Amino acid sequence: MARIAVDAMGGDFAPRAPIAGALHALGALPPHHEIELVGQTAVIESELDALLRGELAELAHVRDRITIVEAPDVIEMSDKPSAALRRKPNSSMVVGVKRVADGVAHGFVSAGSTGAQMAVSFMLLKLHPGLTRPAIGAIFPSMQQPLLVLDVGANVDCAPAELVQFARIGTVYAKALLGRENPAVGLLSVGEEAEKGNLAVKDAHQLLLNAGLNFIGNVEGRDLPRGVCDRGPIDVVVCDGFTGNVLLKFYESIGPMLIGMVSKVAQLDPRQVMGSLKQFDVDEYGGSPLLGVRGVSIISHGKSSPKAIKNAIAVAIRAWESGMTDEIGRRLAESVPDASDTGSAT
Amino acid sequence: MARIAVDAMGGDFAPRAPIAGALHALGALPPHHEIELVGQTAVIESELDALLRGELAELAHVRDRITIVEAPDVIEMSDKPSAALRRKPNSSMVVGVKRVADGVAHGFVSAGSTGAQMAVSFMLLKLHPGLTRPAIGAIFPSMQQPLLVLDVGANVDCAPAELVQFARIGTVYAKALLGRENPAVGLLSVGEEAEKGNLAVKDAHQLLLNAGLNFIGNVEGRDLPRGVCDRGPIDVVVCDGFTGNVLLKFYESIGPMLIGMVSKVAQLDPRQVMGSLKQFDVDEYGGSPLLGVRGVSIISHGKSSPKAIKNAIAVAIRAWESGMTDEIGRRLAESVPDASDTGSAT
Repeated sequence: MARIAVDAMGGDFAPRAPIAGALHALGALPPHHEIELVGQTAVIESELDALLRGELAELAHVRDRITIVEAPDVIEMSDKPSAALRRKPNSSMVVGVKRVADGVAHGFVSAGSTGAQMAVSFMLLKLHPGLTRPAIGAIFPSMQQPLLVLDVGANVDCAPAELVQFARIGTVYAKALLGRENPAVGLLSVGEEAEKGNLAVKDAHQLLLNAGLNFIGNVEGRDLPRGVCDRGPIDVVVCDGFTGNVLLKFYESIGPMLIGMVSKVAQLDPRQVMGSLKQFDVDEYGGSPLLGVRGVSIISHGKSSPKAIKNAIAVAIRAWESGMTDEIGRRLAESVPDASDTGSAT
Repeated sequence: MARIAVDAMGGDFAPRAPIAGALHALGALPPHHEIELVGQTAVIESELDALLRGELAELAHVRDRITIVEAPDVIEMSDKPSAALRRKPNSSMVVGVKRVADGVAHGFVSAGSTGAQMAVSFMLLKLHPGLTRPAIGAIFPSMQQPLLVLDVGANVDCAPAELVQFARIGTVYAKALLGRENPAVGLLSVGEEAEKGNLAVKDAHQLLLNAGLNFIGNVEGRDLPRGVCDRGPIDVVVCDGFTGNVLLKFYESIGPMLIGMVSKVAQLDPRQVMGSLKQFDVDEYGGSPLLGVRGVSIISHGKSSPKAIKNAIAVAIRAWESGMTDEIGRRLAESVPDASDTGSAT
């Protein structure tokens, strides 16, 4: 049985999208799973009532698996992320993460400010020993299997040792949540040769060769849409959060755009085309895990639809059930004695 | 009248693709333009004969506008770029760039090793005063006008002052070759706010505010496929060569892939769909200028088709005719006295 806290106030379409997403999730999940909606009780109750009396009436039977957790404040996109915990301790973001930190909830999902979720999760859940920063992992659809790319925005300047940390936690996630046997880790660079890359990447390459991971060397931008490089399929792509963030946003924008343009040429409905290309529907993946913190915190896109929230809740449950968080801790602990790559990251 | 030197030995499909591209170019260009094919004379003559007796027979009338310039050596992809000039001074790459340095040819086009072309152009053509590195500019198709993105691979680690240099030379190129009145320059980052970005980008943002350019602030990955950001259309996107290279290769790979997949869903021939989406056909742009060197050196993709080479030759001619090289020198000279951003770039 899992209990997931959902930020009812976070995201461009809150409170409707997260609340509808929670209802959809419960409708699809086995009955032993429960959801806590965190936010302003009156707002949540009124939205829940409206949805259950209206368009989601068929989900009325899941209502008793929802608890409302009061959080009077809301973190706005204009709030400084690092000050969120101190200035708005009663916000849905802080209260939600606290439910996980206190062991009451098994995971937290929010479509609110990514920066605030990162900062609050970092402060309340803490990092595993051996890590200096958390990383955001994003699922990149490819022609083959989806890839886990990290970091996509938590760390804009990365030391080589941090890139190695991403490789370690990405390996655990890919195994636990994507079901990859022995995840192949590629280091994003500008050429496949070890000597290609910027300073951090070149050093990280050398560290990764001795990190005890299934490191397949450098991968290039062109390999990501294909999901494979010359050395075989790719499961995890490691990069700094600047490059990863630029690439993720580029991907999120070009995909729908090209699909729209080709659909127009073909005189087809883009939604129908998208329906046949499910692997490119980012809503299918729901959310990006914040990796490295001791607890499950899933970051959903600000524009998340109810479907995206529903899938993010499923990701949170799988993350919890897989024991991923403990496994990351174990793997990092194992790597400390014999590896020189988890030391100072400055 | 322009005279363009073409590396007949460079690229995956050499000598056929560059030679066929040269013939196509001459067929389309006014009769006062000429081409020098640089490479092994016997190989070039035999290929030219084969093409003109066979599939390109209708272009026999352009033969007398072609000169063959002997260069017995060929730079292989395995040759170290920085050693190309010293070790293979009689290669088509070195001889071709030398034609431009000596003022005999007005531009050089090659689909051979990008690293070698960069190194040789840098050493023989020299940089404009005020620059520390050349930059490769790539044309990114967008839903609106195409964008000039630089750098896409010449400089993997960039100091803030170098990013400002890219903005300056990109502005001149966008004006001279893309016909943009007052090119809008965006700085690629992870958020539109000035304080978002890695260390180099944050500093570059501040320098760009006072660089006397039409700086429109940070742009994000999502803005590139659209060609616009909240502050209007984008003409030039400035980034370090690591991020730019990853993004360019990603774009080159995802475009054809998505078009192929959607075409399949729509049961259309991908080539037919591509024909209706000309702005996404990279061959239309032919080549990426190496900017900052004192002369026209156009870098074509290793996989360049004859059409890509033909278009790269057209780019070289327009670059020369526009006086772009001198204009970049003038603009950089103007910016030196009153700007603190062109000093030390370490």
